[in-house]
Amino acid sequence: MDFTSILNEIKPTKQEKNKIKELSDKILENLNFLIKEENIEAEAVLVGSVSKGTYLKGKSDIDIFISFPLHTPINELKEIGLYLGYKCSEYFDGKTSEHYASHPYITSEISGFEVDFVPCYKIDNGSQLKSAVDRTILHTNFVKKHLKEYQKDEVLLLKRFMDATGTYGSEFKVGGFAGYLCEILIINYETFEKTLKNAAQWNYGEIIDLENYQTSKLFSDPLIAIDPTDKNRNVASSLRIEKMAEFIQSARNYLNSHEKLKYFYKPKTKISKEEINKEFEKRESKILAIKFKIPKIPLDTLHPQLRKTVKSIADVLNKNKFNIFNYDYWTDEKKIGIFIFETINDKINKVKINYGPKIFYKKPCEEFIKTHGVENCYIKEEFLVENIKQENNTIEKFINNLLSEKDISTIKVGKNLKNSLINNYSFININQITNNDFWKFIYNFQNPGQNIKR
Amino acid sequence: MDFTSILNEIKPTKQEKNKIKELSDKILENLNFLIKEENIEAEAVLVGSVSKGTYLKGKSDIDIFISFPLHTPINELKEIGLYLGYKCSEYFDGKTSEHYASHPYITSEISGFEVDFVPCYKIDNGSQLKSAVDRTILHTNFVKKHLKEYQKDEVLLLKRFMDATGTYGSEFKVGGFAGYLCEILIINYETFEKTLKNAAQWNYGEIIDLENYQTSKLFSDPLIAIDPTDKNRNVASSLRIEKMAEFIQSARNYLNSHEKLKYFYKPKTKISKEEINKEFEKRESKILAIKFKIPKIPLDTLHPQLRKTVKSIADVLNKNKFNIFNYDYWTDEKKIGIFIFETINDKINKVKINYGPKIFYKKPCEEFIKTHGVENCYIKEEFLVENIKQENNTIEKFINNLLSEKDISTIKVGKNLKNSLINNYSFININQITNNDFWKFIYNFQNPGQNIKR
Repeated sequence: MDFTSILNEIKPTKQEKNKIKELSDKILENLNFLIKEENIEAEAVLVGSVSKGTYLKGKSDIDIFISFPLHTPINELKEIGLYLGYKCSEYFDGKTSEHYASHPYITSEISGFEVDFVPCYKIDNGSQLKSAVDRTILHTNFVKKHLKEYQKDEVLLLKRFMDATGTYGSEFKVGGFAGYLCEILIINYETFEKTLKNAAQWNYGEIIDLENYQTSKLFSDPLIAIDPTDKNRNVASSLRIEKMAEFIQSARNYLNSHEKLKYFYKPKTKISKEEINKEFEKRESKILAIKFKIPKIPLDTLHPQLRKTVKSIADVLNKNKFNIFNYDYWTDEKKIGIFIFETINDKINKVKINYGPKIFYKKPCEEFIKTHGVENCYIKEEFLVENIKQENNTIEKFINNLLSEKDISTIKVGKNLKNSLINNYSFININQITNNDFWKFIYNFQNPGQNIKR
Repeated sequence: MDFTSILNEIKPTKQEKNKIKELSDKILENLNFLIKEENIEAEAVLVGSVSKGTYLKGKSDIDIFISFPLHTPINELKEIGLYLGYKCSEYFDGKTSEHYASHPYITSEISGFEVDFVPCYKIDNGSQLKSAVDRTILHTNFVKKHLKEYQKDEVLLLKRFMDATGTYGSEFKVGGFAGYLCEILIINYETFEKTLKNAAQWNYGEIIDLENYQTSKLFSDPLIAIDPTDKNRNVASSLRIEKMAEFIQSARNYLNSHEKLKYFYKPKTKISKEEINKEFEKRESKILAIKFKIPKIPLDTLHPQLRKTVKSIADVLNKNKFNIFNYDYWTDEKKIGIFIFETINDKINKVKINYGPKIFYKKPCEEFIKTHGVENCYIKEEFLVENIKQENNTIEKFINNLLSEKDISTIKVGKNLKNSLINNYSFININQITNNDFWKFIYNFQNPGQNIKR
């Protein structure tokens, strides 16, 4: 397979490379000058895909880590780290914004590039870890040492393939493959195509253990890639099984395809609201959309909470015989969130069985009868039961009850979403939403699996 | 507790007793005369509740067993047994009919009493058993030996209580307590009230082992009453757990009641078709009734087949998201059978997921893709799946498909019902049925548990 044409598209040009090299050298120089001048015990280093030479053309974010000795108090590290970031950004006329992930950091737009300034601790191995970002320098060093020059292209091909098949990105919104995991795959399997050939054969619990730590028993994840810099960590722990499965199937589809190059481009689909509406009508599905305001929290906190909440609502609906064919959530990541349910049936009858204890538990049976009245109780199999009225027999009524102050505790709601849901949600017709990204989402919701085949 | 009034109602009068004694003596005399005259190796004996003195007033069927030595060929036993039955019945001007249960026998109406003539083998213990009825003589002898005179009344009270609470009768239609089991309970617990007090405390797998055989480990039934005449048999094996549970709850309700006598009479309920229809409407339930011709087979074969079939249909409906609130069957035991389903929802959407293999099984995945086309397949969790059209999206369409020649094998249908269902069923409105027994059934279907409380 000749990848020249695609590599021409995805490899940074010499010009881009030089520009980045020049800029990042200048920034490092400036930062380390500041550090020396102010007599700070720290060191600025370049990390990430720019440092490793594994970034895709035009996706060259510059990651600068300011590493402090382990004895530095955390407040000092944050304060001085941010101070240095601001100071340096100012020097380069950068447009600065502050972020709070698990760790505060600064992002600055400098000469058209996005530059991150991240304070961290300087550690020699995973056991010294004080904050999640401390590992990054170790990861960068490992890849620089073990990834051969020609393999950088292989990493680029893999990243691009994953991006085009919807499996790239370890942020919680995606739950796919991290850049570092891609590099580990290439170091392990040598090339892009060998990685795909191996992935096509992966088992549940597949193990990649570059340093032969033999610690895979610590993990029960579907893919176990033991971190070469920390034997107690699985690099693939945040990979969702669905994304792993999609990668496996994408790999199989690619290997069987006669038009392999197509797998490096996202499928082009014309999205027609009319067609989408028509298809839902044809299916006789009801589409229930719940709109609400999202809280101001980091995206990596928001997305898991949205996922967990919509799943919990769907579980409760299914359990109560409002059968759900499919569900998902969408958010603009700024103001609103939307839960979507495609129903199998959205109405039920008005009576349901309240199960009491098994007949053989005498005391609990007595309690049940005392509470519900002997005249209402009967036997179903070996259970004491009663019929109760199912007042909320449409899905809207049921959800209105579920998302009330009184009943919301019966579902697993992300803690930051609780108030938004109780106070601010409304049922909307999806056709009222004009956001294009939402309609892309709805198209994929209705036609899943578009990304894994060509 | 004074049971005089109820005993007066249920104990046979002296007159009835004398009449039966006289008649059964005459029949036995005649039979044994015939046997001697024709030089047959056999003996006629009186068995059952008449012999044991445990029959309820007016329910005095006379059971005559004609027992042959073990070496008698089975054909000879049947032939001669039936011959003797006919001959004797003729002598008394009886109105005869022949029956084929597991064993052929003759029923004759003589002087207003129902007399059964049953050929059997004479055995000394359960291990010699050649046919199901052979045990009856052993059972009769055991009860006559161990049931004390005063306990006969206790048996009558227990039988009557069970009859009034709907738990009496081991025939498959009921699946309740056999007469012999009642006698064992009284021998074990001494009196009617002690039986109820003990039953109120029963556990799952409760053991009654009069002869201390310690063979309960052989059984996994909810109630284990080891046959005193056969340590390898559980007398309660045909007791359905629901009937056991209803007896337990009836006992508890009785013991807590201030109007205990009421538990010896079936509850009186005015059955109003209007009220029943109104209640179903209020519940917003759909009542689906499937009417079909029943085959000419013994009732103890028919009932289990009906029960198994309606359960299997309900299971498949539930699995396919036509959620069933309640289901049951009714039959006039002559011509027609009716399956009844009360639905939670009777309509679903028109698309469903066809689950393929888990992604990790490569070969089966390849097969699935080959069959269904790569363009149709997508990933759901760790499964390869496709969407397929759910053509039969109303419960009637779905059942029409299910009960077709092609698909009926996907449910567990009683083998004698298969043809009736494929060729002869129809959906009917229950209001078209005029049979009173059917409406009693529907009343209990809608209001279960009426029998276990007063």
